[in-house]
Amino acid sequence: MATAERLLLLLLLLAASVAWETNAHTPTVIRRQQQDGEAVAPPPLIHPLRPRLGSGGQLAARAGGVACDSWRLGVEAHNVIGWRTVPAECEGYVGHYMLGGAYRRDSAVVVDEAVAYAESIRVAGDGKAIWVFDIDETSLSNLPYYAKHGFGATPYNDTSFREYVAEGSAPALPETRRLYRRLLELGVKPVFLTGRTEDQRAITVANLRRQGYTGWEKLLLKPAAHVAGGLQLSAVAYKSGERQKLQDAGFVIVGNIGDQWSDILGAPEGARTFKLPDPMYYIG
Amino acid sequence: MATAERLLLLLLLLAASVAWETNAHTPTVIRRQQQDGEAVAPPPLIHPLRPRLGSGGQLAARAGGVACDSWRLGVEAHNVIGWRTVPAECEGYVGHYMLGGAYRRDSAVVVDEAVAYAESIRVAGDGKAIWVFDIDETSLSNLPYYAKHGFGATPYNDTSFREYVAEGSAPALPETRRLYRRLLELGVKPVFLTGRTEDQRAITVANLRRQGYTGWEKLLLKPAAHVAGGLQLSAVAYKSGERQKLQDAGFVIVGNIGDQWSDILGAPEGARTFKLPDPMYYIG
Repeated sequence: MATAERLLLLLLLLAASVAWETNAHTPTVIRRQQQDGEAVAPPPLIHPLRPRLGSGGQLAARAGGVACDSWRLGVEAHNVIGWRTVPAECEGYVGHYMLGGAYRRDSAVVVDEAVAYAESIRVAGDGKAIWVFDIDETSLSNLPYYAKHGFGATPYNDTSFREYVAEGSAPALPETRRLYRRLLELGVKPVFLTGRTEDQRAITVANLRRQGYTGWEKLLLKPAAHVAGGLQLSAVAYKSGERQKLQDAGFVIVGNIGDQWSDILGAPEGARTFKLPDPMYYIG
Repeated sequence: MATAERLLLLLLLLAASVAWETNAHTPTVIRRQQQDGEAVAPPPLIHPLRPRLGSGGQLAARAGGVACDSWRLGVEAHNVIGWRTVPAECEGYVGHYMLGGAYRRDSAVVVDEAVAYAESIRVAGDGKAIWVFDIDETSLSNLPYYAKHGFGATPYNDTSFREYVAEGSAPALPETRRLYRRLLELGVKPVFLTGRTEDQRAITVANLRRQGYTGWEKLLLKPAAHVAGGLQLSAVAYKSGERQKLQDAGFVIVGNIGDQWSDILGAPEGARTFKLPDPMYYIG
């Protein structure tokens, strides 16, 4: 084969590869934004995307003995619970999932459902209709942190994560912010309910405001005393207890959204619940 | 380029493509079977697999305005509810998912979790520990029917589906049968709880036995009167009511597995619940 021909062939293969990536992913975003009546522009990035070339871009690939796509589905459908770290073989898979576009598409479908539901209900004009929002990996994204810490494949480090939170630099998850703003228009008041602790209130408020979240009804953080028991302890009990207090105070929880099943399990859950994707960590 | 060289190149590309398919899928099954101590043999098929070549094999592909992979995740995580048919654009996607290996891999992860959980609990020797099994798309697979009926993209046809059930030819979902048999070994008694009706009891018993299910504690079918209200009506209420009766009778529901959220939602759910994949239909 002549050198020129080999070069041409390589270029053709590269072009085909790029065309496949483009075909599989770019139209998604453009079509969604057209539907929303927004300008056709690149989607808001919450972290620089990784190029999806090579085997790392193959979301269905398996590594070692773990079918990473099946593992992720198991996590999202609440079958795989109580795990401490992403399987080591799946670090690359989870990284590509989080940064390659699939995470954002999956989040968009959840929020589309939530918005359609919110628009379908009658909101009483008494100002008592609320929607509960989790913060981390729901309203704000800690991808800039997790991208540097193995996407959940290394054990949770409370010290370094709290340092990151203290920067107040977490970007919004744009899909959740879209839901938040639509709810305000519909007269449903947002309530943040988070595993973050009271000592993190000021920076959390600043971070939320900086990212375009305003006008919330309440921001409920854990008493710092809870820290002693560990953040991973009894999230279901803590959060459902707080929702019970809201209900006892006369609020009607029309919706509840979080990235962990512990955000949305445990009565009173809210009239409808939404589970955003999160294959990076588990809080039980 | 010489003809021989072109031919060689084509062969190389083909080989690479086949290698990719093999790499992505075949080792899964072999490794699993080795772990189980079974013979290394092709996995039991519940329906002939489709070849996963060409764009139809690309599970992440989107069709029309729907991101089919995100839609499926939304279904499995109980975000997308109340849908009547698979989006028309996703018929091909769902067909490839169900027949291309991913469905079986995803089911295997769910059952692996269920088996690990069952092996971790102490089963009281009083014979009161039970595990609730749904039937359709859980213990038995109706893939042979749905493969001929658009994989859920065409509206549910009660007449033709009941004709199919009356054949008693539905294959087992091999993963669920593996769980079923392990539970019997562990002293946990299986109880079938199904939306099938009493008039289907004889053929259901025959079909289950033919597929290797024996030794169950109970087979609970709906009274035929429920048919008037439609099979899709209040599955949560019906099934949780039956589970309550089991509990009132002294049984301890240590586990509960189904392909629909309506199989596993509603107190008493059971000590732990497992959601098998099913992107073909929704029962609320």
